[in-house]
Parts: sequence; structure tokens; C-alpha cells
Amino acid sequence: MQVSIIGTTGYGGGELFRILHHHPVFRVQSVHTTRDEIPLSEEFPHLNGMTSLKLEHINAEKIAKHSDIVFIAAPSGVSSKLVPAFAHTGIQIIDLSGDLRLTDGELYRKWYKHEPIGSNLLEKAVYGLSEWNKQKIIDSNLIANPGCYPTATLLGLAPVIKQKLINPDMIIVDAKSGASGAGRSVSKNLLFSEINENFRIYKVNEHQHIPEIQQQLNLWDAEISPITFNTHLLPITRGIMATIYVNLTENINTDRLIELYKEQYSNNPFVRIRQKGNFPSVKEVSGSNYCDIGLHADERTGRLTIVSVIDNLMKGAAGQAVQNANLMNGLNEKTGLEFIPMYP
Amino acid sequence: MQVSIIGTTGYGGGELFRILHHHPVFRVQSVHTTRDEIPLSEEFPHLNGMTSLKLEHINAEKIAKHSDIVFIAAPSGVSSKLVPAFAHTGIQIIDLSGDLRLTDGELYRKWYKHEPIGSNLLEKAVYGLSEWNKQKIIDSNLIANPGCYPTATLLGLAPVIKQKLINPDMIIVDAKSGASGAGRSVSKNLLFSEINENFRIYKVNEHQHIPEIQQQLNLWDAEISPITFNTHLLPITRGIMATIYVNLTENINTDRLIELYKEQYSNNPFVRIRQKGNFPSVKEVSGSNYCDIGLHADERTGRLTIVSVIDNLMKGAAGQAVQNANLMNGLNEKTGLEFIPMYP
Amino acid sequence: MQVSIIGTTGYGGGELFRILHHHPVFRVQSVHTTRDEIPLSEEFPHLNGMTSLKLEHINAEKIAKHSDIVFIAAPSGVSSKLVPAFAHTGIQIIDLSGDLRLTDGELYRKWYKHEPIGSNLLEKAVYGLSEWNKQKIIDSNLIANPGCYPTATLLGLAPVIKQKLINPDMIIVDAKSGASGAGRSVSKNLLFSEINENFRIYKVNEHQHIPEIQQQLNLWDAEISPITFNTHLLPITRGIMATIYVNLTENINTDRLIELYKEQYSNNPFVRIRQKGNFPSVKEVSGSNYCDIGLHADERTGRLTIVSVIDNLMKGAAGQAVQNANLMNGLNEKTGLEFIPMYP
Amino acid sequence: MQVSIIGTTGYGGGELFRILHHHPVFRVQSVHTTRDEIPLSEEFPHLNGMTSLKLEHINAEKIAKHSDIVFIAAPSGVSSKLVPAFAHTGIQIIDLSGDLRLTDGELYRKWYKHEPIGSNLLEKAVYGLSEWNKQKIIDSNLIANPGCYPTATLLGLAPVIKQKLINPDMIIVDAKSGASGAGRSVSKNLLFSEINENFRIYKVNEHQHIPEIQQQLNLWDAEISPITFNTHLLPITRGIMATIYVNLTENINTDRLIELYKEQYSNNPFVRIRQKGNFPSVKEVSGSNYCDIGLHADERTGRLTIVSVIDNLMKGAAGQAVQNANLMNGLNEKTGLEFIPMYP
Repeated sequence: MQVSIIGTTGYGGGELFRILHHHPVFRVQSVHTTRDEIPLSEEFPHLNGMTSLKLEHINAEKIAKHSDIVFIAAPSGVSSKLVPAFAHTGIQIIDLSGDLRLTDGELYRKWYKHEPIGSNLLEKAVYGLSEWNKQKIIDSNLIANPGCYPTATLLGLAPVIKQKLINPDMIIVDAKSGASGAGRSVSKNLLFSEINENFRIYKVNEHQHIPEIQQQLNLWDAEISPITFNTHLLPITRGIMATIYVNLTENINTDRLIELYKEQYSNNPFVRIRQKGNFPSVKEVSGSNYCDIGLHADERTGRLTIVSVIDNLMKGAAGQAVQNANLMNGLNEKTGLEFIPMYP
Repeated sequence: MQVSIIGTTGYGGGELFRILHHHPVFRVQSVHTTRDEIPLSEEFPHLNGMTSLKLEHINAEKIAKHSDIVFIAAPSGVSSKLVPAFAHTGIQIIDLSGDLRLTDGELYRKWYKHEPIGSNLLEKAVYGLSEWNKQKIIDSNLIANPGCYPTATLLGLAPVIKQKLINPDMIIVDAKSGASGAGRSVSKNLLFSEINENFRIYKVNEHQHIPEIQQQLNLWDAEISPITFNTHLLPITRGIMATIYVNLTENINTDRLIELYKEQYSNNPFVRIRQKGNFPSVKEVSGSNYCDIGLHADERTGRLTIVSVIDNLMKGAAGQAVQNANLMNGLNEKTGLEFIPMYP
Repeated sequence: MQVSIIGTTGYGGGELFRILHHHPVFRVQSVHTTRDEIPLSEEFPHLNGMTSLKLEHINAEKIAKHSDIVFIAAPSGVSSKLVPAFAHTGIQIIDLSGDLRLTDGELYRKWYKHEPIGSNLLEKAVYGLSEWNKQKIIDSNLIANPGCYPTATLLGLAPVIKQKLINPDMIIVDAKSGASGAGRSVSKNLLFSEINENFRIYKVNEHQHIPEIQQQLNLWDAEISPITFNTHLLPITRGIMATIYVNLTENINTDRLIELYKEQYSNNPFVRIRQKGNFPSVKEVSGSNYCDIGLHADERTGRLTIVSVIDNLMKGAAGQAVQNANLMNGLNEKTGLEFIPMYP
Repeated sequence: MQVSIIGTTGYGGGELFRILHHHPVFRVQSVHTTRDEIPLSEEFPHLNGMTSLKLEHINAEKIAKHSDIVFIAAPSGVSSKLVPAFAHTGIQIIDLSGDLRLTDGELYRKWYKHEPIGSNLLEKAVYGLSEWNKQKIIDSNLIANPGCYPTATLLGLAPVIKQKLINPDMIIVDAKSGASGAGRSVSKNLLFSEINENFRIYKVNEHQHIPEIQQQLNLWDAEISPITFNTHLLPITRGIMATIYVNLTENINTDRLIELYKEQYSNNPFVRIRQKGNFPSVKEVSGSNYCDIGLHADERTGRLTIVSVIDNLMKGAAGQAVQNANLMNGLNEKTGLEFIPMYP
């Protein structure tokens, strides 16, 4: 099958190429940018000698003619302008931006400060949280690929939400991300000397991923109150950790919770539940499509601590996008995605 | 006045030397270790040409003869063996370990897995949280210098606790620290390749600073329930951030809270409250004795987010120790401590 | 084919597993250590759920019975004790230590301060610089896998040496390596807080890779004088850069040199020569088996600057080891090694 | 004395403020920028509560009226436009850019690609390498403050050049710098994710500091041939190391060379020569005005390795600027500059 990548000069687009270049079924037919039309290996010298593809400007009709799937790795506010053109063509669309994720256009306008995309497309789009929306993804040809933070958070919370084991009034998510999550655009805040040897909180209680998480949680359980969700910038390139605090409503211990999580994710090869006393670090999933989860029910406080880690460019973006493409095309979801984490 | 430093080969001891070497009133008379008796500048080549002091083994009697103050920067479980020898001599003791902080010896045994120090010394020791225990510190000659995490956490929480503005049943502290907090002892977990480009949670719900924080909070308000407190290892050398989540019990907005914090810390030069919308990053206090605090009352959830940052080796250890020594000796607490943060 | 890995608890051994786990022809049959016999995924949690292999102590006879190839990733001074036991068995041996690389035992004793291995094995061992020793490697069953620094240096120098384009009296190599090159053993110098935000030179003019480089250079051209070679520790985990300075003896420009290098490496898929004005950075080969080389002939000085980068754990250790195993077994040398560099 | 700082929003300007704020003789009267006229503590939150100074646009006449000294920390190509306005006023000028350093305007045009400043000012300006131009600096009121790389390189080379101990035909300098040396302007190459876990060479044989170093070397010894000088970008914020390779012309050993260096720098408190076998790392001078030098004469090759480290923002910029201001005003050169390196 032929695939095209829009936005290949960003980190998410680059990662899509890294995965798809060796994918046994998909073949990268063309790569696109709004910037200079130079060879891809000039934009990314690490691809030197590996590809003769040249970056091209975006022509939806032309792309649709030679592609079965298009991955759109454009910024939020830009995708909403690209998706309609591809939607007409009938090819499979996997959009990595936030533009198709919120079903309520007004909510999008409030958190993203952009004009929302048309409601017909919002209704058609399927939220691509692979582990929990599998059948819908299989049946869809328009995917709203989840955000990096929502992926780590929702995979960590889903089992206790679905089993109604926690107090719906208190969910606190303290999240941390590496700098690649902010993309490759230039700004003073992203300079090396500003991030290195530093750690900062940002968009305090205002991150645009809040409504995305809230929307999915309330689809699972309408009683969930507004969650607290905060984000910090780690001085690393890749990796997200969500440290999640909830109040257990039943007397349930760590052993039983781990068992429950293992059951819930038993058919999901990319979610790994850690043994008791063991918690994942972000490097332990780096370069891979895994989401690793550690759990501890604290008897002293009656609270559960959930630790969920992903590589933000993989399971948090390009990896999950390819996982969804696999599902949409009847392939094993692991196809082309069996990267072992690179450690150290 | 003459001072001696025990444990000068660790990072906390080295930082004490950095501060005290240029202190206008205190003079470092001797530096001590249990390791090799080599010149201090051989142990720490950055001190090359700045000092001719030689590391000496510890002889309490001899040290007390030539010193007015002794700073003990030894590990927990070791200090408890050193303090009694100095206590007899009558000189001022400032202990940076955890051995004098918990007034309940049994609690110490449970969390530190060491034998507690005698109760007579525990009763005599004053908890050296400079901003909130000032008069007791002034009157004391045996200081239990606070832990790094407790300093950041308690300074962040004190105003809302003392003003009874929060629900005593929910305090959640998500703390992150640089690697120097783990000291200079060798272990596989502290290797560069294990920490670099990584981020891990550790001692989940089991950190020995939990009872220290809880003890002080309950002294301020006996109704505070067991807190949730977790710690993560940042891939940086210096710096702690405590991100604190509490439920506000009154309808009080961010502006008013900032005002309140400014009032409460008005006579405390080392606590800086950020303006609305501004939050401190750890590098913004690096190398200094400041604790910077940012606040945001979230209308969506009714929760307050408190962000408190310190340099763990300064306000979290050596800086606060010298601040306490200043207080004990009738000096302005800022004496010798006016380091401007090193940025970038 | 069945393979075993000795020293799987180090970084080189871990990387061998990462490569071999998905190798289409080789299958990891057993993994070995001198430490605890625990599951491999307990030693390396990033392998959680990927393997049920358990670390075992080393029994050469038993290993030889079920293996066609053994990779020995043990420290120098230890390999020399292991290799003889395997040599008797006739299976293929690829040794990643320095113990088989110097053909002169006395030279080994001088630089490594260990007892050299027996001369019969030294004579049998083939130096596994894949690109320049291909036929010998194909015919061998005992490989001395090159050191990380020598690989980067020799691949960078070979074309101008072999073409006699430089003054044999002046070769200066200024090399820099990430911390994983020092292995996973614990020492104060390898602590995060000592390496982070730091950069140091070490083993000045005394690195044990000097005689290895010199030996190979003199095999290519006996007139090469003693080279200057220095090593620095970069605050990164993976990556080596050798910046090499030589005097050109002919009036030959950068264009022509690039052409020459491309010719010399035309059948070698893992060496990539950069275009004029373009120089490789270490991240551009990270996680891959590539050696990237950039060149600049400086008209102002008549000197050539050669920049050669590798991932020290891949082309500098495990990657080249598997490349050699491929060659020894009639496979395409790229088999199982087509990792795209992970960028960023 | 009153001082003003031009370009206070960059890293060099910020560092000038850090030093001068506590200087016992100089007092920062005003701070200037071409950007927004906001409070300095808004531009640099780490200065929160320490200063009420507001950034002002540049008005040379007004500045000269209230200032005795002006420090110009503007980019090369901008200083040349500012200096003339101040030169008329007669106040002391210390310029940190490259615009006054090359006495040959044409050379400046070639390497900097800007229009050179007028020759009358070039003739008047004194090159502020404090240790070697002391008397001229004392007598001057217009200082061309040296570049960061030239400072490290020239201090490392001066003794052997002046004593004519090396072959003038071969000087090779392999230099490495932290990212703060590139300033605070935004560009893709300076993004965290591009520099972190990476190491790159840049401006190969084309760095604009080459003619500055060459000019000073030839003033010392006209026979010195064109040097080779290359620069690399370290994934750290502060710090420069120059690793220098020269051929010794006499049979002189390391001990004697160390003695010689100690003699040559005996009255220079900011140059520290390391003992035999000991080499400085960049962190060992971080935050201080020191230049630390290590030496090794290699018997195997007859070459001398010189390792010279500085903090690029201190001795490489703001620190040396203040050192020069001290000299110009009859103060001890150490005044206000006795920062102990911050380790770790």
C-alpha cells in the first residue's frame, strides 16, 4: 500500500518516516512540507543515503491519486484546513493534530483559539486510542490520532474508571514531557540554554489536552468531575510520564490492581503492566511503541498512584498512528512497530 | 567566628565550603571526612588555589576546641553517632541529616531503618525551617536542618495551612529533584547513563521525608490527614520542584492568594512570590538560597496549584544551614548568602 | 543459528540483545553473566514482556553445545580467561574486549596492565574492522572486534593512508565519547552529577586504544609515525566523534577527497560520506550501525580535517560484532542491522 | 562609579548584571536593549525582587551623562554602530563584540561579512586579554574584550610561544563550547532537541575567531604559521575547552613545563595551572572567572597537549570585561570577581 506523509520536516513527521521506511506492507510514496522542496535527506541528514525522496508541496488531489493512506502531521489549526481536501478523495486519513479530536467545535475554539473544522468531519472522525477504540478504528477511514499526554493519561486511568474503583471527584494528573513534544518550531523558550539543567511547569491548568482527556473520561463514565491536569517540561528529548493520583473507593490492594490491569490489557501488546514494586522510567520505552504502567495503592492515604510512560513521538504520535493504520487495513497491530526500547 | 565542616567530601559539604569561604563573619577552620586525609583541593579540584585546608578525620573534642560552630553534613544514620560527642562540648551544632528531625524515635526507626538518637537530644533539637521557626532557632544551639523536599513543600503550603484555606483531607505533593540530592555515593542507579535522558519515580509513597513533612503540617494544623507525597529523579544536577495540589475551601482567587503569600513572607528575603501567570523554573533559583513560589487557583476544579522551587544544595541544605547559623549568632539572615541565581 | 551472549548485563551486551532479538537468522539461545541469575527483563526492565530468557552463569562447554556463535562482551582482562575455553569447542567466537586485538602480547601488558592471552590465540584472531578486513573475517571463526575509538578513527583515516595522501609524521586525533563507552560499572567519576554539564579529557596520551590504532595504521603504511590520540568524555549517553587533523602532501581539494572516500567505501553500506560543507553530528547515527564521515581540506593551512562519527554501542561494539557474524556466516552484512538513526 | 550595560537581554549582558550587582565599586545605573522596555526582572525572572531597573532603549548621550563606564554586549555588526556614539563622550567603553578586535578592517570584512568600524577607533582600541596586556588596558578607555575561544586558546598557548619552545609551523586547536556561547537568538540549530544528546562540529576551519587568535599569536611571534582551529558544540550551557596540540622543539618534560607556566602566570590570580597528571574539566571553573590549564608532554610523540578551560560567559565574556574595568580604574583586578566555581 502507498502512503504519504504531510509535515515531514517536523519531529512527528520524521518519526513516521523512521517507522514506515521499513514497514513490510506500507510504502512511503511521497513526503510533503510547506517549506523548501529539498531532498528529505537534506532536511534530516540522518537519512543520508537511505532515501531519494524529495519534499514536495501539498497537492491533495495529486497525493490522493497515488496514495492509499495519508498521515497528516501538521500543527493544530493547519490540519483543519488540509483534512477537508483529502476527505473528498476517499483515501484513509490519519490526522495527528488536535483538530479532529474534540467533538464539540466550541470547546475546540475555546482551548485551541482556532476556528473549528466542520461538524460533518468531526462526526465522522474516530478517536484513535488504539487499545480502547479498536473496532471503531477498524471500521473508520478518518482517524483523530490522540495527543501524547492524553494517550499516557487515558491508558493509565481506563481500567479503574471502567471498573468504577475510584472516586469520580478527584483525578489529579501531574504530567511531564520531553522537549520534542513542543515540535521543531523556533522560540526562545525552546532554546537549549533555557531548557537544559532546568525544569518548568507550563500552561498551568490551561493545557489544550485537558478537554480531550475529559471528553474521553466522560464517555467512559459521565460522573467524572473536572480533572486537574498539569504539564511540565523535562530537559530530555523524548518521553512522557503521567503521575496520576486517585482515591480508591474500595479496599483493593496493589496486587489485585496489577492483576486487573493485566486482564484489561491482556490482548494489547503495547501496554505493559509492571510487577509490584517496579515502576517504569521514560527511557525504558524510548524509541518504542510501548506504554508502561506501574501501580501502588497506598494504605496510609487510601490513594492509588498510577505511573504511565510513553515515548511521545511513538505511542504518543507516530507509533500510534501507524498502529491505527495497521488496524484500519486488517493487519496485526504490531506490524512494523516491534521496536525494542533503546537503552541506555 | 570559627566553623568546622564534617562530611566535606559530599555535595552538601562542598556547598557549605562554597558559601562559608567568603562569609564575612564565619571562617572555615577545619574540614573533615572519614575518607582519605588529602588536601581539600585534591578532593575538589575546582577549589584549586583557593584553600590550603586539608581534610582531617573527625575528633570531636579537638574540633570543639577551635570551633564555635560545627556543621554536620553526614548521612542519616551516621549523624546520630556524631552529634552526641559534640553535644557535650557546648558548641553550636547544625546537623543536615534526617537524624534529629523526627521527634518520635519510633517513627524514625520505621522510615529510616536506623536506630534513633537519644530522646534528650531529639527534645533539644530545633527544626531549622528558617522562615517559620525563627525565634526558636535564634534561641537554640542544636539545629535539625530540614530536608530538601520538606523545605520546598512546607514553604509552599504554610500560608494556606495556617490560614485554614484548604481541605485538610487532600494534600498531594508531586516532587521532582536533581541528582545531587542523592549525594555523591556510588550506585548503579546514579550512573550518568542511567539518569541522562531519563526520568523516573522512586520510593513511591515511601520516601523518608513524608513523616518530616507530616509532622510539621500537623504542628500547624492537627487536622491535616495523611498527605500523598511522591518523588521523581530529574536529569539535572541541582534543583527541586514541588507541584502541590489542594482543594480550596473558600472562594478565593489567584490575586488574593498571591497577596496573602506576599504578606506572610513579607519579612523573609529568601522567599519570592511570583506575579499572577508567572511560575518559577528550577534554574531561576540555581546557586541561590531562594525559594520561589507560583500560584494558580483553578476555577474549573476549585483546586489550587502551588509550585515551589529551590536549589536542593542551597535552600534545601547548605544555604539554609548557614541562614540558621546567621540567626543563631545575631546576624542578618542574609549574611554571606546573597548569591544571584546563575542563569543560564 | 543459535547464539549466546556473555556479559549481557553491561551496555554492550544489552545492545547485542537489542539487535539479535529481531535478527532473521540468529536466535539468542542463552544470556550469561557472572552476577545474579535473574530474568533478563529484571536486569533490563525495558525488555519487560519481550523475553523469558534468564541470565545464567558461564559454562563454556554447555554453551558451546547449544550455540553456533558466542559473543563475549566481557571487560578486558576477563575475556582472555574466557576465550580459551570456547576456543576448544570450535564454535564461532566474537570477542568485544581488547584482549585479542594487539598481536604483540607485551604491548598488551604495557597498555592494559593485564596478563596477555596465549600467542596461539592472538595469531588466530582476526581484527574485525568489517570494511577493511572483509575476506579475513569471512574465513575466520575467532574475531577480535575493534574498539569504539579505533573504529571511528580508522574508518576516517583509511582512504588517505592507503592512497598515501598525507604526511606520515603528523596524525592528530581528538576524540570524544559518550558515557556509555565507560560501561556500567560503578565509580565516582561516572556519577551523573560529575558528568552532567561537564566535559573532561581523560587518560591524556595514555588511552589503551592508542596501540590498537597504531598497529592497524602501520599495517596499512609502515611509515606512519606515532600518532597523537586523546579522548574526552561527553555528557551524552551514546556517540563518538573523532576529529582528525592531517597534513596533505598533495594539492587535493575537498571535492576530490569526497569523491575518493565515496569510491573507497562504495561497497560498504554502513559508511556514509557527507557532501561538501556538511558534517555529521553524533545524533545523526544514534542507534544505527552507520559511520558518517565529513571532510574539509583547508587551503589556509594545507591541512585536512576529517570528522568521523559512530554510535559507540553499535558500530563501535555490538553492531559491528553482528556485522562480522553476518560476514562469517555468508549473510549480507546488513542482515538485521538496518536501524534508522533515532532523531531527534 | 556608575555603569551602564547595553544588550542586557542576552546571556552575556545578563552575566554582566550578575557580577556588577554586588560589585563593591561599580553600580549598575541603567540597562539597555533594542527590544521591549520592560522591567529587567520580567526579562530574567531569576532577578525577581533583586532589582527595580527597567530596560531602556539606547540613547548614548543620555547614558554617557550618568555613566562612567559602558559595557556593550551587542552582536558583532551592531557594536560597530554603537561604539562611535559613545566614543565622542569620553566615558570608558568595554565592547564585548568582535567589532574592535581585528586591527585590519579588511580582515574583519572577510571573516565577519560586515562593514568594519572606522580605523581611528580600531587604532585606539586595546585588546583586553587581561593577563598579557595589563599595562595597555590600564592606560586605555576603549577595550576590545577578547572572544571566548581566543581567551582560552591564547592563555593556553602564550607561555610556550613567548618562550619559543614549539615549532611555529604546527598549532592545532580543537575547541568545544557550551550552547550559551551562541547567544540567546532563536534558530533551529539552537533548539534543545537538536543539541541535547548530540555533539557537532561547526564552521569547520571558518570560525571568525581564527583571525583574532592568529593576530595575537603573530604579535607575540611573527613566525607562527596559520593555525588550525576548529569548534564543536557541547550539549551543556556553559564552558569552553580548548585542547591544543603543538610540537615541542626542545627536550622539555611536563614537570618543567608546569613550572614554567606557574612562573609566567604567577601574578595572575585567575589563571590556575594544574599539577602533573591532573587536567581541568569545564565544570571546575563554572560560574567563575578562572582559566584552568593542564599540560602533558608526550614522550612517545614529542608533542605537548595543552588543555585550557574557561566559563565562556565569565572569563570568556562578562568576567574578563569586569576584570578589565577593574584594571582601567585602578582597582585590584579581582574586585567583585571572586566567585567560587559552582560544583557540582
